[in-house]
Amino acid sequence: MKAGTSPPASRAAGMRTLVVHVLAVAATALVLFWCIGFRGGLAFRSSDKQHIFNVHPPLMLIGLVVIAGEAILAYRTFPASVSRDARKKAHLALHAAGLAVGLVGVYAVFKFHAEAAIPNLYSLHAWVGIATITLYALQWLAGFLAFFFPGAAPETRRSAVPWHAVLGLLVFALAVGNAQLGFLEKLTFLQSPPARLVGKYGAEALLINFTAVIVLLLGIAVVIATVNADSTRYTAM
Amino acid sequence: MKAGTSPPASRAAGMRTLVVHVLAVAATALVLFWCIGFRGGLAFRSSDKQHIFNVHPPLMLIGLVVIAGEAILAYRTFPASVSRDARKKAHLALHAAGLAVGLVGVYAVFKFHAEAAIPNLYSLHAWVGIATITLYALQWLAGFLAFFFPGAAPETRRSAVPWHAVLGLLVFALAVGNAQLGFLEKLTFLQSPPARLVGKYGAEALLINFTAVIVLLLGIAVVIATVNADSTRYTAM
Repeated sequence: MKAGTSPPASRAAGMRTLVVHVLAVAATALVLFWCIGFRGGLAFRSSDKQHIFNVHPPLMLIGLVVIAGEAILAYRTFPASVSRDARKKAHLALHAAGLAVGLVGVYAVFKFHAEAAIPNLYSLHAWVGIATITLYALQWLAGFLAFFFPGAAPETRRSAVPWHAVLGLLVFALAVGNAQLGFLEKLTFLQSPPARLVGKYGAEALLINFTAVIVLLLGIAVVIATVNADSTRYTAM
Repeated sequence: MKAGTSPPASRAAGMRTLVVHVLAVAATALVLFWCIGFRGGLAFRSSDKQHIFNVHPPLMLIGLVVIAGEAILAYRTFPASVSRDARKKAHLALHAAGLAVGLVGVYAVFKFHAEAAIPNLYSLHAWVGIATITLYALQWLAGFLAFFFPGAAPETRRSAVPWHAVLGLLVFALAVGNAQLGFLEKLTFLQSPPARLVGKYGAEALLINFTAVIVLLLGIAVVIATVNADSTRYTAM
C-alpha cells in the first residue's frame, strides 16, 4: 500500500468499527445514567461534594476512552472521500479534545478532594491515572512534533510510525484499565461499612460493574479494529 | 525470515527480555513479601481464614502473569541453539503450567470465601477474573489444536498466527489488568472503616501499590518485547 491512499475497507473492518461506535455510545450513556440517576447528578459547585466527584467518571471516560478511541480509529472510519491529510488532522484534533476533556475530569476530582477534605494520590487508581494522562500528553506532543509540525525527516517518520502506534495503544490500554480501577474503587467505597450504601448484588452494583465491562469491551474492540487494519496493511505491502 | 529459523537476536531485544526477567523476579518477591511478611503467611488449611486468601495473590501472579509472560517470550528468549520445535513445546508447556497454577489460585479464593462466609462473584475483579482464566484456557486449547495436535492445514495456521498472537496478548493484558484490580480491591478493604487496618500512606499501602506498579511494568515490558520482535519479523519479510 502506498502512502497517501486509504486502507482497503472490507466488510469485516466496517463491522469492527461499527461495534466500537455502538460500545462508545453505550458506555457514555451508562456512565451518565449512573452518575445522574443513582448518584445525584453532576456539578462543579455544590454543597453536596459528591456532585463534584460525579463530574470525574463521565469526563475521564468520554475524554481518554471514547474520544481517544475514535481518534485512534480516525484513519479507518472516515469515508473514502476524506483525504489522508484530513484524517491526520482529525486524529490530532480528536486526541487534543480527549486530552482537554480528561484534564477537566482530573481537575474535578482534585476539587472534590480539596472541598471534602480527602487526601490526594494515595490509591493505585490515582497513581496509574496521573501516569496515564501524563503519557497521553507526551504521546500527543511527540506525535505533533514528529508527524505534524515541524515534522521529522521522512526516514525517521517511517521508523517512528510503528512505535507511535504501539505506544499509543499501550497508553489507551492504560486508560481503559484505569477506568476499571476507578469503577471498582468507587463501588468498593459505596459498599463499605458502616454505611454500606450499595448492596453487593444491588441494582447499582450491577450497573457499575456492567458499565465497566462495556468499557472493557470498548477498549478490546478498539485494539482489535486497529491491529486488524495494521495486519491488512502488512499483507498488502 | 523463513519458517524454522530463529528470529535475529539484537542487543536491544536481549535487553528487553532481560528487563522482563528482572521485573518477573521482583514482582514475585514483592507479592510473597507482602503476603508472608505483612499478612501472616500462606496456608490451604488454617483457622485464620486470611491465610487461605493469601494463597490467591501469589499463585495468580506467578501463574497468569509471570509464567505466562515467560511463555509468551519463549520463542525469543531461548538461546539460538534451541530449535523452533523445542521453543514451541516450551511455549505450550509453560502456558499449561501457568494455567494450572492460576486454577489453584482461583480455587484458593473460593475456598477462602466458603470458609469465611463471603459471597462469591459480586465484584468486577471476580467477573473479569473468571472471564480471563476462561479465555486463557480457550486460547491454550485453540493453540494446541491448531499448532500442535492434530494441527490445522498450513494455510490456516499461517493466517491464524497473527490472531493467536493478538488475542494471546489481549488475554495477557486482561490478566495484568485484573491483578491491578485485585491489588486495589484488597488494599481498599484493608483501609476501610471500621478497622482501618492499613493507613492511606502506610508502609503496607505503599508496598501493595508499588508491587502493582511493578506488575504493570512487567506486563508492558512483555508486550513491548513481543511486539518489537514482530515488527522486526515484518521488516525482514
